[in-house]
Amino acid sequence: MTQSTVKKESELSPEAIMKLGMAYWSSKVLLSAVELGVFSVLAAGPLDGETLRQRLGLHPRGAAAFLDALVSLGMLQREGDKYSDTPEAELFLDRSKPVTYMGGILEMANTTLYQNWASLTEALQTGNPQSEAKSGKDFFEVLYADQEKTEQFVRGMAGASNYIGQMLAAKFPWKDYHHVIDIGCSGGTASIQIALAHEHITGGGFDLPPLGPIFTERVAEFGLGDRLSFTAGDFFADPLPRADVLIMGQLLHGFDLDQRRLLLEKAFAALPEGGALIVYDSIIDDERRINTYGLLMSLTMLIQTPGGFESTGAEYRAWMKETGFRDSYVEHLTGPHSMVVGIK
Amino acid sequence: MTQSTVKKESELSPEAIMKLGMAYWSSKVLLSAVELGVFSVLAAGPLDGETLRQRLGLHPRGAAAFLDALVSLGMLQREGDKYSDTPEAELFLDRSKPVTYMGGILEMANTTLYQNWASLTEALQTGNPQSEAKSGKDFFEVLYADQEKTEQFVRGMAGASNYIGQMLAAKFPWKDYHHVIDIGCSGGTASIQIALAHEHITGGGFDLPPLGPIFTERVAEFGLGDRLSFTAGDFFADPLPRADVLIMGQLLHGFDLDQRRLLLEKAFAALPEGGALIVYDSIIDDERRINTYGLLMSLTMLIQTPGGFESTGAEYRAWMKETGFRDSYVEHLTGPHSMVVGIK
Repeated sequence: MTQSTVKKESELSPEAIMKLGMAYWSSKVLLSAVELGVFSVLAAGPLDGETLRQRLGLHPRGAAAFLDALVSLGMLQREGDKYSDTPEAELFLDRSKPVTYMGGILEMANTTLYQNWASLTEALQTGNPQSEAKSGKDFFEVLYADQEKTEQFVRGMAGASNYIGQMLAAKFPWKDYHHVIDIGCSGGTASIQIALAHEHITGGGFDLPPLGPIFTERVAEFGLGDRLSFTAGDFFADPLPRADVLIMGQLLHGFDLDQRRLLLEKAFAALPEGGALIVYDSIIDDERRINTYGLLMSLTMLIQTPGGFESTGAEYRAWMKETGFRDSYVEHLTGPHSMVVGIK
Repeated sequence: MTQSTVKKESELSPEAIMKLGMAYWSSKVLLSAVELGVFSVLAAGPLDGETLRQRLGLHPRGAAAFLDALVSLGMLQREGDKYSDTPEAELFLDRSKPVTYMGGILEMANTTLYQNWASLTEALQTGNPQSEAKSGKDFFEVLYADQEKTEQFVRGMAGASNYIGQMLAAKFPWKDYHHVIDIGCSGGTASIQIALAHEHITGGGFDLPPLGPIFTERVAEFGLGDRLSFTAGDFFADPLPRADVLIMGQLLHGFDLDQRRLLLEKAFAALPEGGALIVYDSIIDDERRINTYGLLMSLTMLIQTPGGFESTGAEYRAWMKETGFRDSYVEHLTGPHSMVVGIK
C-alpha cells in the first residue's frame, strides 16, 4: 500500500493539475510582451495604460487584461494607473541594453520552440526531433548561413548566459590557471566574464568561422581584445586548441553519447597534466527528482536535436572517468545550471 | 523614485523571468501525459519505467526524462523504479473514472488552445479571436453538429467543474430556495452537485437541444432523474425559464457587454421578488493584481470568442444594480473561481 491510499477523495483538489495544465498561458503572456517590446518601451519611464497601449499598437479589447496579467505575474509594476518595469525587467528585457538583454532566448522560445513543443507527443512516440532537424537540416547550419540572424541569435543567447558566466568566474579556482579556451564559444560570454573577473587570464573561444566576427566584436566592446581571441574550427573535425582550462558550456547536451565521448577524449588530449575541463549544462540531480528545468531541457533537446539529452552529474563524472580524467566534481552555478569539472 | 531604483544591478537575477518564459514546457509535459494516457495506465497499479514506456508506446530516447519530469512536477510518484499516480492524478486524470475525470479540459488545452494561444500577439494587436471564430464560425455551433464530440467535450468539461459545483452547493444558502435552473447548463454539473447536497432542491438545466440527451443521461447516472430535468432553448432568442434561483456559470465571460446586459435583464425578468441570480466565473479581484488565472482566462476569451472577457466582482455588481437587482455580493468558491450573487 502506498501513501496514496490513505488520503480521502474529498480532501483532494484538482487545482494543482489545472494550474500546471494552463501554465503555458503565463509563459506566452511574457513571451508576447517581449515580442511587443513592452519592457523596452517602459524602460524610458512609467506610462499610463492608454498611452502604453497606443505606443505598443495594441487593440483596446485585450490590452488591460494583458498588462494586468503581467502585473499579477510580477513582470510589471503598477502604481495608480502608471505601469513601469520591475528592476529585473528593466535590466534583462530592455532591448537598448545589449550587454544584459536576455530577450533573445525568449524570442526564440516564443516562436520556434513554442511551435516545436506543440509536437512533444510525436517526439516522445518516435524519438525524432520536431525542429528543422526533422527534415534533416541542422539548426546551426541553417542559422549561420544568415549573418544578420546569426548576430541576433548570438547576442540574444549571450544575454541569457551572462549570469551563468559570472557564476563560472566566481566558483572555479581561476588563480591556479592561466589560459582558458571555450569550445563552442558562440558570442564568447563565458571567457568574457572570466577575463573581466580575473586579470591574469588569457585565452578565448573556438567555434565555426561564422562566429568569428561577432566574438571579436563583443570582446572589443568589453575592452578585452588584448587577452581574448577567436580560433576558427569544427570541434568534431579538428583537434581542439591547447589550454590549461577547456570549457564546454551548453554544448554536450545537444549531442548523443558517442559524440560526447569523442569530445571528452579530444578535450583530454588537448589538456596538460593537471588541466581542467569544465562542462556546464542544466545538469540533472542524481536522483532525477529536483531539477525540473534540466529534465524539461532534456525534452527540448529531444525536440530540437537528433541525439541530445540532459544528464546527471554522476553520468558526466562516469564518462570523464572512462576518458581518463583522474578526478571530477559537480558544483552548482545558478538556478538549474551546474558545472562538472574534470581534472586530468 | 520607485523602490526599483534602490536595488543594485548586481542583486538582480534573471531566474524568475527565465522560469516563467519556459513554464510552457511544464504545461505541455502534463498535457501530453494526459493525451498519452499515462495516468489511466498507472491507475491500475505501479509499473517500472520500461514496462510503462512500452505500455504507452514511447520511444526509449525521451521516455525517462518525460516520466521523471512528471515526478519532479509532482504529477507522478516514483519509488525505486516504480512509477505510480499521485492521489490527485488517480482521481482526476484516469479516463476510467468518468465522474471525476477532468482530462477533457486538458485535452482541449493540449490541442486547440495551445495552438490558438500561439497567436496571442496577433490577438492583442487586432482584438480578433484566433479560434474557429477567426473565420466567422461559432465554436459551439461547430462542436454541437457532432454528437460524439459533443458528448466527449461535455463530459470533459463536467469533470473539471465538479469541484466548483460542490463549492457552489456548499456556499449558497440553498435552504431558503427550492427551484434552480442552470442557464447554459451543458452536462448539468452545477445542478447535479446542488441536488446531491440538498434533497429539497428541484430544477434542472436550460441549453441548446443537442445538450439534452447528455444532460438527461448524466442526471440519471446520479439517480436524480425525478428532481432535475432539461429544457431546450436558446438563451438569446427565448425567454428564460422561471425559477427562484438562476445560475449562469462560466457563461457570461464568453460574451460582450451588450450581450451580458441582455442576459442579466432576461434573468431579472424570470426571477420572482427575492429570487437570486448566481454568476460564477474566474472573477478578477477588484484591484486586478491577484487573480492571475482570471486575467489569463480573459485573454483566452479574447483568443477564443468574438467579444468575451473576464470581469471584476465590482463590475458584475454594477451591472446587476443597473439591471434592477436590489442587492448583490461576491463570494469565493475555489481557486480562481468566485460567484457574484444578485438578489431581486
